[in-house]
Amino acid sequence: MFFQHNFYAGPGALPNSVLAKIEKELRSYQNSGMSIMEFSHRSPQVVDVINDTVARFKKYLKLDDAWELILLQGGGSMQFLMAPYNLSKPGERIDYIDTGYWTQRAIHEAKDCERDLQIIADGAADKYHVLPDLEGIDTNTGARYLHICSNNTVVGTQWHEFPKVDTPLVVDASSDLLAREFDLSKVNMLYAHAQKNVGLAGITVVAVRKSALLQPESLPDMLCYQPHIDKLSNYHTPPVFSIYVTNLMQKWLEEEIGGVEAIAEINLQKAKHLYDVIDSSKSFECPVKISDRSTMNVVFTTGDDARDQAFIDYCAERHIIGVAGHRTHKGLRASLYNAVTPEDVTALVACIEGFDAT
Amino acid sequence: MFFQHNFYAGPGALPNSVLAKIEKELRSYQNSGMSIMEFSHRSPQVVDVINDTVARFKKYLKLDDAWELILLQGGGSMQFLMAPYNLSKPGERIDYIDTGYWTQRAIHEAKDCERDLQIIADGAADKYHVLPDLEGIDTNTGARYLHICSNNTVVGTQWHEFPKVDTPLVVDASSDLLAREFDLSKVNMLYAHAQKNVGLAGITVVAVRKSALLQPESLPDMLCYQPHIDKLSNYHTPPVFSIYVTNLMQKWLEEEIGGVEAIAEINLQKAKHLYDVIDSSKSFECPVKISDRSTMNVVFTTGDDARDQAFIDYCAERHIIGVAGHRTHKGLRASLYNAVTPEDVTALVACIEGFDAT
Repeated sequence: MFFQHNFYAGPGALPNSVLAKIEKELRSYQNSGMSIMEFSHRSPQVVDVINDTVARFKKYLKLDDAWELILLQGGGSMQFLMAPYNLSKPGERIDYIDTGYWTQRAIHEAKDCERDLQIIADGAADKYHVLPDLEGIDTNTGARYLHICSNNTVVGTQWHEFPKVDTPLVVDASSDLLAREFDLSKVNMLYAHAQKNVGLAGITVVAVRKSALLQPESLPDMLCYQPHIDKLSNYHTPPVFSIYVTNLMQKWLEEEIGGVEAIAEINLQKAKHLYDVIDSSKSFECPVKISDRSTMNVVFTTGDDARDQAFIDYCAERHIIGVAGHRTHKGLRASLYNAVTPEDVTALVACIEGFDAT
Repeated sequence: MFFQHNFYAGPGALPNSVLAKIEKELRSYQNSGMSIMEFSHRSPQVVDVINDTVARFKKYLKLDDAWELILLQGGGSMQFLMAPYNLSKPGERIDYIDTGYWTQRAIHEAKDCERDLQIIADGAADKYHVLPDLEGIDTNTGARYLHICSNNTVVGTQWHEFPKVDTPLVVDASSDLLAREFDLSKVNMLYAHAQKNVGLAGITVVAVRKSALLQPESLPDMLCYQPHIDKLSNYHTPPVFSIYVTNLMQKWLEEEIGGVEAIAEINLQKAKHLYDVIDSSKSFECPVKISDRSTMNVVFTTGDDARDQAFIDYCAERHIIGVAGHRTHKGLRASLYNAVTPEDVTALVACIEGFDAT
């Protein structure tokens, strides 16, 4: 068995100690003689895991009693429709900022929700490598919310500060939840799937202000937040194993790393290390505006498809995997989620320097 | 580490050899140096697992090219609304047979789908311990479909043959998929979550006839089957690990048990063993009509809540877990899904006989 440096954009790397813990108690959870996978979702053991996971998210996000937090299925994609369904009424205005692929997917799903959906700004003119400047744009539109994606995995941009607007924000934080601290003072809802920084594909975290919930009528309960809130994320059978892994990820972050503030600093340093070597290389460039660069997804390229592929192959020979760009975007991309270590980044940096010297 | 005989109603027991396989390759899938949990959903490794899982379901269900089969998130519960949304239009008639708790949950979600939902038969008069007799009921109503639940986990009934009606059936087979053979000649759609017989909570199998799909307008794509069909169950990030476990369950069923026909016979014998001892005991009785009894969920009781609890405690002392009835139903219940072995049933039978002799 050998080791891979895993830069996949998600699902991606998990911490070694989390994998070791899963392995250790796989056949007998808490000395029960049963795998966690074999417990009823209503057993005390599983209910404890769910409740602890929810409580930890609330603590790490510093949510007070004005907020609800639930765990759902369906990925970030299901929230593309549940957000408009639960935070606005038919015909009401909802605003979006288009910062590339994933906001476009959010807009695509929300467009069929019978709302007055408006895109108030987009980064198309800069190929999405710059976040839109909201200066001069009327953001006080009376919309129920303004949707943004806090980190854009495909193009490699990140809102280091959320836009300062009067409209309450809905934030897709799928790729930087628990990877940095958020100011949620202007946010009505934040959601994230787990497979970047907090676990496996299959669960989604939804934090929503109670005051923003509209209790939709004529919508199946499965698509409404309130039944899931009322039943403590157990309205229907939750994905137990995925929640268990998220719980292990939370404990790893708090107990081994030191929490969100600590990982945020580590993530900054990892990104700085990689951007610095790209910027100073002769073969590679990063097309993203420096102030908008993501700490999570470092997008770069040689400027030539064949040479990018040669670099991907060069990496593969050195046990570095997952550095191809998004299939819609090409180029190169290294994702530096919480479980990617500074040592992984050092290995990639060595590859860049080695390739640069060829 | 000790062993538990696990009769949970789902999530529940997994085969030992499946758990052993998960454990064995947890840290390095196919000698890759990475866990299956760490692979991108677009990596060849994961795409292979998804496609193989879909192909095996098609093979085991004997589906020809008239059918599509996809893997989704959201449990059986999400199909309670996706079925009406995709197989009927607003205002059109859809029929349901109410055989207890889970059909009522299906009806509850579908009622908000703006269809003409009619319950054409129910088992309420018999406390759902008898399947409704359709003799004398007009089933030829022009409805788009008639929804049934093939096995009723809470009350312990099972349609050993699907109702012989002209309306195409939609079958919730969540608790007996791959546990017995189905005649799908009159079925337009069959769906099942995985956590009874085919894996972990978090994935749902949907088999649907192409001719029954209506391509709904004004509905977000996430709620439509066609985008998931077009993208080969990879329209958005699928729950990779859950699909991997289902794939292992399929291989176990085919390679170690001998397939659906073989497990169906084993399941019949397990159920017969348990029903026989209950029927001949002096302490216990099964309230379900003999011809409608489920091979999956054996519902029984002493007729006294305190004595039922005493039996649950008696079992716990003997490493038998999960024999409490559904929280809405009380009493006792033993679930005999594919992974529950004849030896598990023998252990439970010994408990029943021991308790009976006290």
